[in-house]
Amino acid sequence: MVPSEIRALFAMVARPEVVSLAGGAPYVSALPLDAVGRLIGDLVAGKGAEVLQYGSAQGDEQLREHICDVMALEGVQASADDVVVTVGAQQALDLITKIFVDPGDVVLAEAPSYVGALGTFAAYQADVVHVPLDEAGLIPAALRETLADLRAQGRRVKFLYTVPTFQNPAGVALTTARRAQILEICAEYDVLVIEDNPYGLLGFEGEPMRALRADDAQHVIYLGSFSKTIASGLRVGWVLAPHAVRAKLVLAAESAILCPSNFSQLAVREYLATQPWQEQIKDFRELYRARRDAMLESLDQLMPDGCTWTRPAGGFFVWLTLPEGLDAKAMAPRAIAERVAYVPGTGFYADGTGHRHMRLSYCFPEPHRIREGVRRLAAVVEQEIQLRDTFGRTATGASSGVQTPGPDVV
Amino acid sequence: MVPSEIRALFAMVARPEVVSLAGGAPYVSALPLDAVGRLIGDLVAGKGAEVLQYGSAQGDEQLREHICDVMALEGVQASADDVVVTVGAQQALDLITKIFVDPGDVVLAEAPSYVGALGTFAAYQADVVHVPLDEAGLIPAALRETLADLRAQGRRVKFLYTVPTFQNPAGVALTTARRAQILEICAEYDVLVIEDNPYGLLGFEGEPMRALRADDAQHVIYLGSFSKTIASGLRVGWVLAPHAVRAKLVLAAESAILCPSNFSQLAVREYLATQPWQEQIKDFRELYRARRDAMLESLDQLMPDGCTWTRPAGGFFVWLTLPEGLDAKAMAPRAIAERVAYVPGTGFYADGTGHRHMRLSYCFPEPHRIREGVRRLAAVVEQEIQLRDTFGRTATGASSGVQTPGPDVV
Repeated sequence: MVPSEIRALFAMVARPEVVSLAGGAPYVSALPLDAVGRLIGDLVAGKGAEVLQYGSAQGDEQLREHICDVMALEGVQASADDVVVTVGAQQALDLITKIFVDPGDVVLAEAPSYVGALGTFAAYQADVVHVPLDEAGLIPAALRETLADLRAQGRRVKFLYTVPTFQNPAGVALTTARRAQILEICAEYDVLVIEDNPYGLLGFEGEPMRALRADDAQHVIYLGSFSKTIASGLRVGWVLAPHAVRAKLVLAAESAILCPSNFSQLAVREYLATQPWQEQIKDFRELYRARRDAMLESLDQLMPDGCTWTRPAGGFFVWLTLPEGLDAKAMAPRAIAERVAYVPGTGFYADGTGHRHMRLSYCFPEPHRIREGVRRLAAVVEQEIQLRDTFGRTATGASSGVQTPGPDVV
Repeated sequence: MVPSEIRALFAMVARPEVVSLAGGAPYVSALPLDAVGRLIGDLVAGKGAEVLQYGSAQGDEQLREHICDVMALEGVQASADDVVVTVGAQQALDLITKIFVDPGDVVLAEAPSYVGALGTFAAYQADVVHVPLDEAGLIPAALRETLADLRAQGRRVKFLYTVPTFQNPAGVALTTARRAQILEICAEYDVLVIEDNPYGLLGFEGEPMRALRADDAQHVIYLGSFSKTIASGLRVGWVLAPHAVRAKLVLAAESAILCPSNFSQLAVREYLATQPWQEQIKDFRELYRARRDAMLESLDQLMPDGCTWTRPAGGFFVWLTLPEGLDAKAMAPRAIAERVAYVPGTGFYADGTGHRHMRLSYCFPEPHRIREGVRRLAAVVEQEIQLRDTFGRTATGASSGVQTPGPDVV
């Protein structure tokens, strides 16, 4: 697709009659907007000289202390001094890649992996090697095999990039047993782990999972974000890194943006200090759980035989695999014509594969819209299967490789 | 200086008894904070679903239209489609350098030049070649000579970086006659101009100067910022670039931060749409003019013979040159001991020179504090002159080359 076609597609997706299961935008309307507005208005009126002024490149110290409290919910013990506030976790990814990766260096990433990370890795000319995952997350044996292969080839691996909890796009969570194994393998091969964890507190069952960083402060760089637990429009994320890396990150951040916005940071700080934020996250969890249920129930009821999909226990996404011979990318324009949108799987692979997959998000549309979207999607897939059965393999869309993420597919 | 010494120095500068003529922070307390707070509070309460959500990587379209209105005050005719909103103009600088500069490429910059730009150029391993300026700004003959020399050496110049209006750190403005010459020379040598213009609307006399971009849309990339005309803590800047460059900037921005903050952008948009922002800029101009006057009057009255300084007609900074044999960097700790701080000139040169210079800012302290600061500084300089006369040249601080800017020296 050329940019103008993509733009035309996006323009269609934005139409109200299209049910978009494509976007990764959180449902920020569930926030108590009046209370948040009052809080922020009072903050600017009362502390404007600080809120509207430059801050430090590392980020506000009190906010970094709150961030440590947030990470403690996942078992992470950290000092505010080792936290750097970033413009969303995306900036943390960018800075880390800038610091660690030279052109041609190997970066390991799950297959599939977050499209925004793949875009950043491509920008720094990293060579992304995928490691498969399944319903239990990244597969340790596959990781070990990949590392052994690369070592045999004499290739240097800069880091493993992983979204262990409620992965984007697959929706799966790395099991506790596998967490220990992944850490062990990475320590054995002396490979740094970039743990990207925007959805960790959005689990639908029991307590938050223990972060990888909770059990290894030396080999794990942890990326966090308030985009999904408070609001994406604030662009406040963070990175927790070993001390030596943290110092480099601050210098890189200073060169890139001078300092993060005090306006956004202090809004988050005040929100965390004065609002029942844990209750609000609980509300978000209930809301997303109901939407997840709507999606899984509809898929169970409506999708034709031969389709399979993941059953997320948290986060925003279901990963669906089409029957053999179908192509999610080629099908996308036809789906949009039927007023339903998704993200084709190809964007989540650096190697041009993923044609049989699609990401379905349940974070933004209301449950009845999700059901309607799945109904429309099931009809499109049904039609594709009939076409395949009549004419053989359906047309395959030319893969354009990694694309930049676009806020719609975060 | 090692980082811990620098930190100790900064800690001392932050003490209330020290008059800091070092910082480049705007005096945001002059904003009508109650009104701004109300505006933002209402915005979040009323349009939270948009304000708190992801936006596009290019930035909010309505804000980009307002930005075109702002640039029109400097004679710039532009389409909102060619504007990209950035995290302060610093991010624009970072993205432009990332796009254009390969290690070893030549970047031209005024001598002295903005420390944050030099930091970014260093991060991308550009080879900065300085071109001198005088009271009338960048010297055209020197630019032509430098370009001819570099051409003779077969070296590729990627761009000229300039702050033509109320320069940081020199405080000078490029004259109208020279603007035409600079554009002509750059067109002749086919060199792109990066026009960084945060202070353009903060002139103390008459109408705003015509931007370089107003007379050349092909060779000039214009960087703007609301940091000095509204508030630095919002981190909203922009870049106006020829169409092909703009497309690359959007992709680079997406990879770096996904999208700029809607929260900050829509606060600016609403402020520009509903508040008397031109009146507010006029208030800022009056405020800074009074501080400029306080500084120049004090310098005229108090500084020992042999010191010279620029006489800015706008912006935030005076550039002072010490008598032969004095070293502003070596003197800085002694000045701080006498409770006055400035930025030594060395940070504004990529080539290790600048020891006899210092930047004095009048943007933040109130006039009586500026007078007190200059009084203390004059006494320190007087003492240094006596030391020089007794013992010869004073100790020279080892130059540590380009340092990252630090929000205090923006």
